[in-house]
Order: sequence, then C-alpha cells, then structure tokens
Amino acid sequence: MKALVYHGPGSKTWQDVPEPRVLRPTDAIVRIDTTTICGTDLHILKGDVPAVQDGRVLGHEGVGTVTEVGVGVQGVAVGDHVIVSCITACGTCAYCRRGLYSHCLADEGASGIGWILGHLIDGTQAELVRVPFADSSLYRVPDGVDDPSAVMLSDILPTGYEIGVRNGHVTPGDVVAVVGAGPVGLSAMMTASLDGPSRVIALDRDPNRLAQAPQFGATDVVDAGDPHWFDQVMALTDGLGVDVAIEAVGVPDTFTMCTRIVRPGGHVANIGVHGRSVELALQDLWIKDVTLTTGLVSTSTTPMLLRLVEQHRLAAGAFATHTFALDAIGEAYEAFGHAAETKALKVVLRR
Amino acid sequence: MKALVYHGPGSKTWQDVPEPRVLRPTDAIVRIDTTTICGTDLHILKGDVPAVQDGRVLGHEGVGTVTEVGVGVQGVAVGDHVIVSCITACGTCAYCRRGLYSHCLADEGASGIGWILGHLIDGTQAELVRVPFADSSLYRVPDGVDDPSAVMLSDILPTGYEIGVRNGHVTPGDVVAVVGAGPVGLSAMMTASLDGPSRVIALDRDPNRLAQAPQFGATDVVDAGDPHWFDQVMALTDGLGVDVAIEAVGVPDTFTMCTRIVRPGGHVANIGVHGRSVELALQDLWIKDVTLTTGLVSTSTTPMLLRLVEQHRLAAGAFATHTFALDAIGEAYEAFGHAAETKALKVVLRR
Amino acid sequence: MKALVYHGPGSKTWQDVPEPRVLRPTDAIVRIDTTTICGTDLHILKGDVPAVQDGRVLGHEGVGTVTEVGVGVQGVAVGDHVIVSCITACGTCAYCRRGLYSHCLADEGASGIGWILGHLIDGTQAELVRVPFADSSLYRVPDGVDDPSAVMLSDILPTGYEIGVRNGHVTPGDVVAVVGAGPVGLSAMMTASLDGPSRVIALDRDPNRLAQAPQFGATDVVDAGDPHWFDQVMALTDGLGVDVAIEAVGVPDTFTMCTRIVRPGGHVANIGVHGRSVELALQDLWIKDVTLTTGLVSTSTTPMLLRLVEQHRLAAGAFATHTFALDAIGEAYEAFGHAAETKALKVVLRR
Amino acid sequence: MKALVYHGPGSKTWQDVPEPRVLRPTDAIVRIDTTTICGTDLHILKGDVPAVQDGRVLGHEGVGTVTEVGVGVQGVAVGDHVIVSCITACGTCAYCRRGLYSHCLADEGASGIGWILGHLIDGTQAELVRVPFADSSLYRVPDGVDDPSAVMLSDILPTGYEIGVRNGHVTPGDVVAVVGAGPVGLSAMMTASLDGPSRVIALDRDPNRLAQAPQFGATDVVDAGDPHWFDQVMALTDGLGVDVAIEAVGVPDTFTMCTRIVRPGGHVANIGVHGRSVELALQDLWIKDVTLTTGLVSTSTTPMLLRLVEQHRLAAGAFATHTFALDAIGEAYEAFGHAAETKALKVVLRR
Repeated sequence: MKALVYHGPGSKTWQDVPEPRVLRPTDAIVRIDTTTICGTDLHILKGDVPAVQDGRVLGHEGVGTVTEVGVGVQGVAVGDHVIVSCITACGTCAYCRRGLYSHCLADEGASGIGWILGHLIDGTQAELVRVPFADSSLYRVPDGVDDPSAVMLSDILPTGYEIGVRNGHVTPGDVVAVVGAGPVGLSAMMTASLDGPSRVIALDRDPNRLAQAPQFGATDVVDAGDPHWFDQVMALTDGLGVDVAIEAVGVPDTFTMCTRIVRPGGHVANIGVHGRSVELALQDLWIKDVTLTTGLVSTSTTPMLLRLVEQHRLAAGAFATHTFALDAIGEAYEAFGHAAETKALKVVLRR
Repeated sequence: MKALVYHGPGSKTWQDVPEPRVLRPTDAIVRIDTTTICGTDLHILKGDVPAVQDGRVLGHEGVGTVTEVGVGVQGVAVGDHVIVSCITACGTCAYCRRGLYSHCLADEGASGIGWILGHLIDGTQAELVRVPFADSSLYRVPDGVDDPSAVMLSDILPTGYEIGVRNGHVTPGDVVAVVGAGPVGLSAMMTASLDGPSRVIALDRDPNRLAQAPQFGATDVVDAGDPHWFDQVMALTDGLGVDVAIEAVGVPDTFTMCTRIVRPGGHVANIGVHGRSVELALQDLWIKDVTLTTGLVSTSTTPMLLRLVEQHRLAAGAFATHTFALDAIGEAYEAFGHAAETKALKVVLRR
Repeated sequence: MKALVYHGPGSKTWQDVPEPRVLRPTDAIVRIDTTTICGTDLHILKGDVPAVQDGRVLGHEGVGTVTEVGVGVQGVAVGDHVIVSCITACGTCAYCRRGLYSHCLADEGASGIGWILGHLIDGTQAELVRVPFADSSLYRVPDGVDDPSAVMLSDILPTGYEIGVRNGHVTPGDVVAVVGAGPVGLSAMMTASLDGPSRVIALDRDPNRLAQAPQFGATDVVDAGDPHWFDQVMALTDGLGVDVAIEAVGVPDTFTMCTRIVRPGGHVANIGVHGRSVELALQDLWIKDVTLTTGLVSTSTTPMLLRLVEQHRLAAGAFATHTFALDAIGEAYEAFGHAAETKALKVVLRR
Repeated sequence: MKALVYHGPGSKTWQDVPEPRVLRPTDAIVRIDTTTICGTDLHILKGDVPAVQDGRVLGHEGVGTVTEVGVGVQGVAVGDHVIVSCITACGTCAYCRRGLYSHCLADEGASGIGWILGHLIDGTQAELVRVPFADSSLYRVPDGVDDPSAVMLSDILPTGYEIGVRNGHVTPGDVVAVVGAGPVGLSAMMTASLDGPSRVIALDRDPNRLAQAPQFGATDVVDAGDPHWFDQVMALTDGLGVDVAIEAVGVPDTFTMCTRIVRPGGHVANIGVHGRSVELALQDLWIKDVTLTTGLVSTSTTPMLLRLVEQHRLAAGAFATHTFALDAIGEAYEAFGHAAETKALKVVLRR
C-alpha cells in the first residue's frame, strides 16, 4: 500500500510500504477514507519530535472503514465506518480508568503516553492503519455525519474542548479569551459555546484569522500585535481581567499574555506545544488565586462531541477549508504549511 | 493603648497609640487576648511588603473579646469571644459571594485584597483592634477550644488546608508531598488527613523540622538536601510521581521540586510567598496534564476547621511551642525569628 | 401608598397602606417600577401557604429605584435602579457563606428561609417595598437591560437555572427533558442552553405551551397526554432514557414521569412546589444510580444570568407576554390566572 | 469441581459441577482461595432475585489465583493473586468510560448491569470461576495484604464508600449519620473517615451492632428503637440535622428516617436494596435543597481502597469475624444467616 513516510527532518515520501497486519488480539485494521494534517506533523518534519524515527508513517487523525479485527475485539466489526482517535487507550490501566487516556500505560511504545499513531507506531496518512485497542480507540460514525466533519473529532475538537474549555473550567457567564486563532484555538472558541460564556475574545496577530474567528464563536476580536491589546481586553471585562485565558500557540509570549489577562480567581489553560521554558511571574501570581493547567487531549469527550455534531450543534465541517486526494498529500502539506497565504485551516485528504 | 508599630525596614516599637474606634456601622472593636506572629510579619520587617507604611500596627492573627460594635453589626455582640480572621470580607461583593474572600472588593485599602489587618489598616499585635465587616470576619470560639488552639484558625490552618490541600485536590488514596515543614507546611500535612491520603511525605532541609513532621501527619520524611531526594520520593510512589505536591517555602528551587515530582495528571499547589519569578519547564509540562494553583487564603473553611478542632479531630494546639506575655512581644519576635535554634513553630502571646 | 394586600383565602385588595420605613441599618426602601405575578402568589390566594397572614402585601419579584438606605448599607445608593431578588440573604450566616441563600438563617421571620418578601414580610406588589439586607439582596440593573427583562431575574430565570439545570447537572451533550412548559419550565429550557445539551425535550399537556417551547430552547416537544409519550421520549434518546429530567409542575404524576424516563446514572431535578407526598419506586431505583434533587432558588446566579441578558445571550424579555399598569393589578391577576385562555406567561406591571 | 448451586428458593447444594472454561478471549479462570457471603445471597435464597435461575453457582466476592487467561487478556497472567470484583466491566462501553461499571452494557446477561457473577453467570462460591473482561474486573493483591482483608474489596468496602460516602458527598467537618450498622453500614462508617467528618453517628436497633460501631469509625451511637432517637440525632448537630444520611438497610422506615434527619442543603445516600416503594414527603422536601442518591457499586475505587488497606489506613480485616473451610459453606451460611446470635459480620471461607 501507499503511505507518507518520514525520513528524518525535512524529508517525507508518499511511497509503498507493507500493509499492516493484526499483531494483537485487540487490534483492528482500518482503511483510511479521510485524513488530515496536524500542526504537530509539521513539528515532526522540522525534527522537533525526536521520538519519531526514520521510516515512520505519519498522521494521527483519520476516518475509515474497518477491514479486519483481532479475536479480542468486541465493540467494532469489519465494515464499520469509524473515527480513528489520535489517542490509543487500553481502557484498563490506572490512567484509562480515570479517563486520562493521554497517559495510557499500555506498553506499545512503552512510554506512558496515549499518542502513539504517527509517533511511536505507524499512523493514518496511509491507505491502511493498524489501530491497537480498537474497542477503546475507534468511534462509529453515525449516519448523517460526513467524513470532513468526523475527522475533526480525531484530534482538534476534543483538544480544544478538553484542554482549553474544560481544563479552563469555563462556566456560564464567563469572559473567555483564546490566544491564538489557528485550528485548535478556533476549536476552543467553538466548543466554549457549550459552557455558556458571556464573551469569547479571540486574540491573534493575523488579520485573516481574526476575521474568521466570529464564525467559530468569538464575540470579540483583539489584534495581539496592537500595542494596546492589553487595555482592549480589559475593556471587555469589568476591568479585573478574563475568567479564563486559553493559550493555543505554544511560545512564551502568548503564555505570559494569558497570565497577565487572567483575573484573580481565574484559570489559564495551556493547549500549546511548548519547546522551551517560560518565566512564570510567581511574585505577582502567588496571591492571585489562579489555576494553570496543561495537557494532551484524552479524547474522552469524543462520543459527546460527536453527538453534538450529529445534532448540528457544532459545525465541525467549517474547519475543512481545502480538500485533496490522498495521493496528492504533498500538495496538501504545501497548502497547510503556508496557511498565512492559503488561509487553510484544516486540509482534508480523501481516498 | 499599647501596640507593636512598624517604623520602616528593621524597625518596630511596642508603644502607646490611640485606641481604635468604630469608623463604620459594620466595624467591631476587639480586645486582643491572644495573638501570634506570622512569617509574613518578618517579611514586612525586612521591607519586602512596601504597602505597609511607617506607623502601621502589625499583626493579622488573634483571638479576643468584642468590646464595641457598630450599629450595622448583627452577628456578634459585646462580650463575645472571637477569632479574628486574617482576611476581612465584606460578604457581599462578587468575590465574597463565591467564597473568595481573599479578593474582597470592599474599599478599605482600595485594593481588591482581603488581607488588610496589619497591612493596610492597623492590626492585631495590640491591646485593641478595629475589625471591619465584623459579621463576616469574626468567628465565635466554642467552649472547650482554648486560645492557643483558636489562634491557629486566624491564618495557618485555613491556609494549609485551602491553599495546599484543597487547591491541590487531595483525594482519598493520594500520595501527597509537602515541600517545606514550617508552620504552614505542617498545617497542610495536618489538614491533608481530612482528605484521606495514603501517604504524606514531608520534605525539608532542617532535620528538626523533619523530626517534628510525623506528629503533624507526615507518614514519610525526605531530606531535601540529600542528593538522592528525588529518587527517594519516587520510591514512595509507583514510580510515576506524587499525586499532589504542595509548595510551602516560596523560592524558585522548591517550586521546581514540586513540578518535577508531580505525576502526570497531578496537582501542584503553591502556598509560598514568592519574591521573584520561576523558570517553568513548559517544554516538559505541556503534555503532562498537570494543574498548578496559587492563592491567598480566604478563610472560608474557618468554621469547618474550628468544628474539627472542637471535636478533637485536629490538634491545633500542637503548633504553639512558645508562650510570651503580650508586652514581651520583642522577645517573642526574637524566638520566632530564630526558629532554627529555638525550634519555635508558632509563638503565642497572651494578654 | 397603594399595595396589594392579602386578606385570607380568595381575598386581596389594592388599597392604601402605610409606607415602609427603614427598620434596620441594613435595609433599603425601593420604589417599585416594575413587578410581576408568580404562580406562588396564586397558591397563597388559594390558602395553600398558611404562613402568609391577613394584611400581608404580596409579591416577591420587582425592579425599582432605591429611595432610602440604612446606615449600614454600603453597596447600593439612593437613585440606583435595582432588581429585587425574591430571596433575602444576610450574606454572613452559614448558609449564605456557602451560597445557599434560600436557607438564610437571619432572623426576620425566624424561619431559616430566604424567601420572606410577600410571605413573612410585606412584598413587592406595592408602590414601595422595604428590602432587608440590601447589599446582598439587590442587584443594579445595567444600562441596556429593560425592566421587563430585568424582572425575570427576580425569580424565574435563576429558579429554572439553579434548581432545574444546575441541580440536574446538565453537561454538554446531555439529553434533557423538562416536564411542564409553564414559565419556570420554559426558564429551565432557556437556561439549559448554557450547559450545551444535545436535545431539550419539552413535555406538557397544553398544546399552546408546547407550541411556544421551541422559541425558549426546546429542540423537541412531546404531548404528555399522549398514551405513547414514554416511547416518544425514549425514541429521542439511545433507548436508555434521558440524562436529566426536570420536574416543573409539582404533582405526583409529573414527578413519577421524571423518575421513569431518567437513564441509569442520570439526574432528576425537582422544581415543582408539591402539596403532597409521592410514591417513590425505590424497588426499581435503588440500583439505577440516579440523583434526585429538590430546592428553593438561592438567586446566587442572578449576577451571572444578568450578564448574559445584558450580552443578549438570554432573551429574558420573551416571557413578558402581557403588560398592565400597576394599579390595574386586579386585571393582571385575572389574565395570569387564566393562562390557558390568555396564553399569558408572565404579566408585567409598570408604574 | 465443587460449587454452591442454587436450586430455587430455599435450596442450595455444595455439589459437583463442570469446571469453567475460557469462553471469550477476554476471560480468565480464577481458582478461589477465599470467598465470603453477602446479604444479597440471602435475598437470592429467599427468592427475591428472580433473575437467578436454578443451577446457578452463587457468590460475587472472592480472592484467588489466575489459572488460565484468554488470548485477549493483557493485564493479568496465570499465577497472579487477584481480587475478583463483584462487578464485571467491559471497560469500553459508554458507562464503563465514565467509570459507572455498575451499568456496563456488555452483552453477557444482556442486561445493562455490571453485577453478573452469581447472578446471571456462575459465581465465586466455587473452586473455580470464569471472570469475563479479566483486565477490567480483577485486581492484583499486593504483598502484605492478606486474603480476609482483600476479599472485603470485592464488594462491601467499595459499596460503603462509593454508594454511601461518595454519593453522600461527605466533606470535611460534616456530621454523617449511617442508618444500619451491618457490614455495609460499617463499611460506610469506616470509609467516611477518608473524607474528614466531624462526627459519624451509627443508628441501629441491635445493641450488639451499636457496640461494634465505634471500632469501625462511629463517634456516636443512637438506638434507632428509642422513641427519642430523632431528638438524640438532632442534639449531635447544631439542631438543623445531619449533613449526610446514609441508608444501609433497605426498608421504607429507615429511608424515611434519613429524609427526616437530613438538614437543608444535605444529602441522603441510599445503599439499601429495596423491595418496595417508599412514600417520599415532597411536600416537606421540595423546599429543603436536598440531594437523594441511589446506586449499585461500580468498584471504580477498588484500587484506591486497596492502596489504603495496604498502607494500613483501613482495617479491612476487622470485618472477618468467622472463618470456615470452603467445603463447610453450609455452616458458614448458618452463621451468617443468624448474625444476631452469632454476631457475625462477614464469614470468610478459605480453600
């Protein structure tokens, strides 16, 4: 079969590789019908994620059709149309029992991490993928949900909701600021609506992204490059700051913006993937009664979010700005990698 | 009357000052029967808290007898024996309504901060003190609770519980580490027992303090100066780290110890008063699903903790290691300021 | 001044009464600009609430202008335009400290109940009203919120939200059923939107009310008089029942409907005022992992709901179907008392 | 092998039956080393649980040694010494994902119920037992925990904690009443200590049980047969009632006792297995802001409780009052069935 193979920093090839097989009784093989590219894939290609080795098939998002199941698989069957979660969960370890699938202790990859597809084992940017722990890691797609919507459930919608909105304890009436209006930040804005905020403020330096934010749920936008951005945010509150600040970029400056705008008693929820440390102003924050959270998505809310997509309460399809054939994945990476010009949010690849 | 007056860094005097009067209908005047000294008072004397001005009467802890009440006071009466909370709460602002009295927006001091006694207005190291918002800020002492126990409810017991244990979300079965075995760290250890931990690990560099920790609830002690301290802590867990790490010192090193020993999905609760920023290793923590909290005590749990002291479930009196007459407050500061030699935890001053 | 005075079952008069005065330092006097009638007022007139005595001025909802304040009032001033909450809260007793103002222990009425206006002391269906504990019981109306919207914050919106939605633990993705589509049931439907349900099912026997329900947030309606109502509800779920069933009528049949349709692990939130006991099928329910809640509103969410009304996130004005002059209150009672014919939801009375 | 087989109401035989075999890839076979008898087994023998059919091997509690595993089992291995949970959980259905294993939707028994051992499939009062979903339903016994302690983790300790203490939202400082001082009620008292109550009041009519209660954590005992029991309970509170009332009997009278003694804003947690409906005084309760809960244990807290037993924080062995050889199970039933005379709490059967 064909798959996108990583060959070290800067190098990837759409090439023939052996088809995956069931290795364990709890595995399923899924034929990929639809996949997409994540910002994390770009990080891998830059060499930022050394655990990804030469020869690895990339991708951790996808929707497909089950073609084979191990003898221990009981919840999905050949022919089922399924979402492949970016997190692979054994369902029985101590972390899985508390719903923290992101830290699944099962031994594929031996790492205490639930994200293994396109990372520690071969991923979804391929014609077929082996999915361990199929019962816990695949979700049947209901009738009426199309693939471009469903594939947003693999990663970005649960990430925005779990790590941004839920970790940020958004509660009705809150003023929420999301710093970074890329796909994950926009997911946080869209899913924040589930918790009744009074305002959702989008901050970014890219005017295109700010222009898109209101259709994803932002009630107000602030140009993060404006020297008066801080005062503009404060003016949208009672003057004390936002209840919840969600970081969706992954650099020190945007994290510090969040700790500055959060009000006493408020929450900072970090979603961004950070490559270096941040100067935390504890001399100001120790007295401020703030909560800071970090996290990798567990995808425990995927069934719930899927129900809301099915009921047309979340317009997941709006993220799919560009579509390519699966074997045109090189072009798709180009479009996604130059989002400032192409205005791509998520590029969708169809079989 | 006599009171301990701050005269700038390094200088304090037990001297005559005018008696306080009721200034607002919601004030009460309390005659101090018992008071104590806080580590924060030492910080003030070093000049670390510039908001405290020359002429201010120090102290924010005390137990006393109400001698006068304003016309708007309905819940306490002259003659009542009361705990003076370190936090003054109006009871009606947005922060007080959610129990976050630490950020009371009432205008004495105009600061959005509930700690005003011995800070923005005159405090409790005096023969008399004016307590604003008496109905919300004084707690009647039940029969059977002695003053040296009751005065621990002014600040350290609620601080250890609210900012350490409760912010740290201690839940039954948890392994809890408390970094710093001074009075507040020991309060966190003692009150952690209310939430059913399987282990409470005390870390400190002072062998005297470590020796005292077990009687305050520590099940294990680790010398923080030992080069193998990290491995010793890990050996007391399943190898993944502690569920909850409580910082009770206030310097970058101890904060970083906490972020290192916390397990994925765990909590770091900062109690320490920090004077400078901390390097936060977000490159490691972003994926770790941790929660970091900060806070100034609200004393919202004071009535609950008082009930447990009354029922002999918390041995609050154990903190009172030294007793002085109120007018020997200079000696008391000496004993408290040299705790390493005197082994003082809390020094109690009696009228 | 004029006021509506209760003279025993079946009897009420719009008559001259003495003007209220400040009796305690924490009182305010409010000139009523807008008031409304509650279903509870009809119960009182039937004689169902014996604590209401001959001579009592009725009414516990209102919006008005402060004309006088006691010396202990610090948060509101003469001239402020305010919502009068149906609950009077001292702000400092044990119940008020935990936000359960409905059980305020302050001694007006000596009852451990926060609802005293138009019940144990004179109420709001009058030209002037005395409001005890003004700092905790009045809420300034922001610019841009009109009186007919604001008066819905006195009781029905917080009741629907706190006792229906919040007690019912509505969480994103839930299927919620509301049994009873009167003003309070519709409030529960409207405010359920703040917690992200996938469906909100309205049940009632009155076709007019069912027809109105969708504009208040219902996604589905079921005729409770239809012999197949149960199957119709189940068909809107996965077959196991609803996540949350909210009772908004107050009779045994509708309560039992709720306990039948709730799924294992679900919640039944009772809002209805019940006059007699209910047969609870514990032989079926003991194993079902359900939570049943009851409650009188605390109005602790009033500021939050008001912010959402101000931001046009809740269309509170939609409840105001009929408007009368204050001195035409007799006609207003007629219209409200015959809601089946008049299709009245809330009747608004303006000065 | 030998097993205790149910033959209809009143009839059971210790007899030869075929040995169980692995039927599904996720099954394990466990040799029973230690088992015990539950009050529910007595109910079954009375014919109260019609789903249990003639020929069924009884028992849902046990500790044993794994002798065989299916090919899909990854978490336990032959030779492991394990607790058999009374609840069998697939780990992947919607209920298991939220930790509500009691309503596991897996199809053995096709019932949406996690309790199948000794109910819908053969149980643990046997030399060998087949355990479905072994990865989710077995827990390795740590060194240092003996079998008589470990077997209390199969059912009663998690039942007392999850359905009594946790459903009852016991929080520090609470006054907790447990109505019924049998094994499950005593488990609730013992595990209540994990949540810091100020008092734990035991109520029962049996003086022997009341005499035992203090060693299981009761701070106060009240004879439920005393005509002044209500006043005695109130006298142990501030006069408003208990914060949490736990029902551990299963008859209408004891449930009603709970709803009478609970304070406004309090919780009633039902553990008892009820055979008929209860008259719920909603005319009094609608305004009282109470929460009533029901439930079958999920055993989701078993690992946590096991850790506390291992750390000697819970004295689980104290329940084991009588020991018998496994093939003397008839005598064991006699002793357990006449607990009033034998003072048996739990009878332990050893291989």
